[in-house]
Amino acid sequence: MIQPKILKGTRDFAPEMMAKRDHVMNKIRGVFRKYGYDTIETPVIEYAETILGKYGDEGDKLTYHFQDHGDRHIALRYDQTVPFARYYADNWQELPSPFKRYQISRVWRADKPQKGRLREFYQCDIDIIGTDSLLADLELIQVMQDVMVDLGLTDYKIQFNDRKLMNSILEAADVSDKNRVDVIRALDKLDKIGADKVEKLLVENGLDASLAANLMQTVLADGANHDKVAALADFEISTIKEILALSEAAGLDLTKLELNPALARGLDYYTGLIFEVVLTNNSDLGTVCAGGRYDNLCSMFCKEEFSGTGVAFGFERMMEALLERKMLDDVPLNAQVLVVQFGKATVIDNLKLVTQLRQAGLATELSFEDSKLGKQFKYADKKNIPFVLVQGSEELDNGVVVLKDMKTGDQTDYPLDKISEVLLNKVS
Amino acid sequence: MIQPKILKGTRDFAPEMMAKRDHVMNKIRGVFRKYGYDTIETPVIEYAETILGKYGDEGDKLTYHFQDHGDRHIALRYDQTVPFARYYADNWQELPSPFKRYQISRVWRADKPQKGRLREFYQCDIDIIGTDSLLADLELIQVMQDVMVDLGLTDYKIQFNDRKLMNSILEAADVSDKNRVDVIRALDKLDKIGADKVEKLLVENGLDASLAANLMQTVLADGANHDKVAALADFEISTIKEILALSEAAGLDLTKLELNPALARGLDYYTGLIFEVVLTNNSDLGTVCAGGRYDNLCSMFCKEEFSGTGVAFGFERMMEALLERKMLDDVPLNAQVLVVQFGKATVIDNLKLVTQLRQAGLATELSFEDSKLGKQFKYADKKNIPFVLVQGSEELDNGVVVLKDMKTGDQTDYPLDKISEVLLNKVS
Repeated sequence: MIQPKILKGTRDFAPEMMAKRDHVMNKIRGVFRKYGYDTIETPVIEYAETILGKYGDEGDKLTYHFQDHGDRHIALRYDQTVPFARYYADNWQELPSPFKRYQISRVWRADKPQKGRLREFYQCDIDIIGTDSLLADLELIQVMQDVMVDLGLTDYKIQFNDRKLMNSILEAADVSDKNRVDVIRALDKLDKIGADKVEKLLVENGLDASLAANLMQTVLADGANHDKVAALADFEISTIKEILALSEAAGLDLTKLELNPALARGLDYYTGLIFEVVLTNNSDLGTVCAGGRYDNLCSMFCKEEFSGTGVAFGFERMMEALLERKMLDDVPLNAQVLVVQFGKATVIDNLKLVTQLRQAGLATELSFEDSKLGKQFKYADKKNIPFVLVQGSEELDNGVVVLKDMKTGDQTDYPLDKISEVLLNKVS
Repeated sequence: MIQPKILKGTRDFAPEMMAKRDHVMNKIRGVFRKYGYDTIETPVIEYAETILGKYGDEGDKLTYHFQDHGDRHIALRYDQTVPFARYYADNWQELPSPFKRYQISRVWRADKPQKGRLREFYQCDIDIIGTDSLLADLELIQVMQDVMVDLGLTDYKIQFNDRKLMNSILEAADVSDKNRVDVIRALDKLDKIGADKVEKLLVENGLDASLAANLMQTVLADGANHDKVAALADFEISTIKEILALSEAAGLDLTKLELNPALARGLDYYTGLIFEVVLTNNSDLGTVCAGGRYDNLCSMFCKEEFSGTGVAFGFERMMEALLERKMLDDVPLNAQVLVVQFGKATVIDNLKLVTQLRQAGLATELSFEDSKLGKQFKYADKKNIPFVLVQGSEELDNGVVVLKDMKTGDQTDYPLDKISEVLLNKVS
């Protein structure tokens, strides 16, 4: 006998949880679709050379990879970005330009599991590639806003910054190209270690002490967006100004958009506007969505350069917030009606009844066994089926069915030929 | 530079193909839900001991498995049945009984890829576990019928048989318990090698020649279902009779149900009614759905015995038939409307227009760049966006938008405040 257990950091999802997860995914997907995004799918297993080497040693260590029977070196997808880059490099000539795609699927990390660190989890990415128009960046802000609002996560805040602004600030602080990534990584730690320690790190990275102090003062500019824009007038602020104007014109909720000149995002990959979304009432969760503009998504796989912009939603973190806030308690399972059974004498009529209900569009179950009514009601209860129909021989004689509302316990007779209509009204 | 290629037997799916695959999955899922089935999800990676050893050496050879960094022995899901059994063994006490679940997800085979043999593909399973009621078997027949009809695959035929009938026939032919599996496997080859060779195989397996001849004559009984039932009156035919009566009572299309007393299905696993669905106009595809009743799904993982019944749809094969028959040509991508762009002077009004359209429920794109109109129309063409809206400064002055129907090429002016309504009518 084998013990039925699973690897730590992987999960089984029971029907109730799947219903909730599907509900959230469908909401997110619904927003993506409303903006005309389509989806693609890439394999879970790829040649290891495709997957490895993209995120340095740390990334490679966290990638599941192995030799197959034919001595091919195979890896499990570590993220959705690299396979997308591989796909786009191979297919861009056939695809529309710009290319708008979303992907919601699983990735794997050979990690030590702990709270918030899983070996198997979902990523949820959206990208626009093949245009450097600011309208594309604007669209991502709109999408982020719509996703958060549709999920009821109205305490979101979209922090944003521009790498070009950051670069002009770094230039003024005499940061060399060589030091740029290190300085950006240091700034990225602001939330974790605080301004003083970051400033110290900068000096350790070779910055002049007074230039480092100036730099810190610049990126920590306080106030409303327009105050910050004014304070940063000496730097490369034009894109920031333009995206704020566009956001206003598009009717976005500007109170949710917060310019943060210190926002760095670790990867050297970004070249323009960058974004991070947090839930102000769940700052413990960290970023629930992040991304930005890049210029070399596919550089590992092809010579062409494509400007693009994209964000990744932290699906698992958003699920955590939604579950913690009990906002998914009402997501139903599929079955809407259970027709109970009384054995051979009435089975044919009850078979006809369920067929009639299903044809009307009601998700309907027929009890498989004519066990005691109490047991059948209990099954409905367990599956949260909201309505139960009883059609025994007495009801058959009178041309009625008894409808039991499982929430209130009320039982009411309805004519057999009206029951689909009655139920459709109740479930809609 | 790394060549952007994927492993043979794995596939990328472009947006158009994903739309078609999603369309088909949603149809199948829609039927499952109409019958009150919910879904669960299990990990892609599991302990190898969970996955291996269930289908003998051949199955193990075809399973991807490896040691991870922590020296855990890990395997990729080979099918959905074994992880479901593992899940059910671990959770049956918490789950409703009977438990009705569907699962549509990917599995992996370390196989040599060739036509019809992939390394990564989808399985689509539905099971009812925890009841031996024939109404459960009936429900699976209904589900199979509804799936085929909903997909327009009306040339389906459901062949069925009963293992208890088969056993009683084998008993009469003096087949020992020891030989039973070999004889069943021989019968399974009927379609491939023909009756004469199967009969020879039976004799090689130790059957008396005249008993083998009798057996072949019995299982090859010809005619309509009721003729076969009559011809098999001496054997264990009661379940067959009952399921036929129930199917008739439930209003199923009996012309699609074909009793085939020779139907064996290789696995020893089955204990009651078994099913195989073929498309009569695509018999080259083989079985597009198959399954049956079993009594020991979880025996590897727990002591309890659960009677259940389930079928697996051959999703990839059904896709093949649907694509070959050009039945998915009209499945649209997501975007329904493209609003073109004329540059800065009109961008704010066009941003407002797309917001209005999206709020009305129309999947709408705004061109990111104000390139030549011809290029923007070409983008709509490439993405099969059915309608394009033009709102330049002239239209703005007149309070109209030009609607171009991309199929007919017709261009018509509509008042701005009527355009959502007009489009909603056109796309519905």
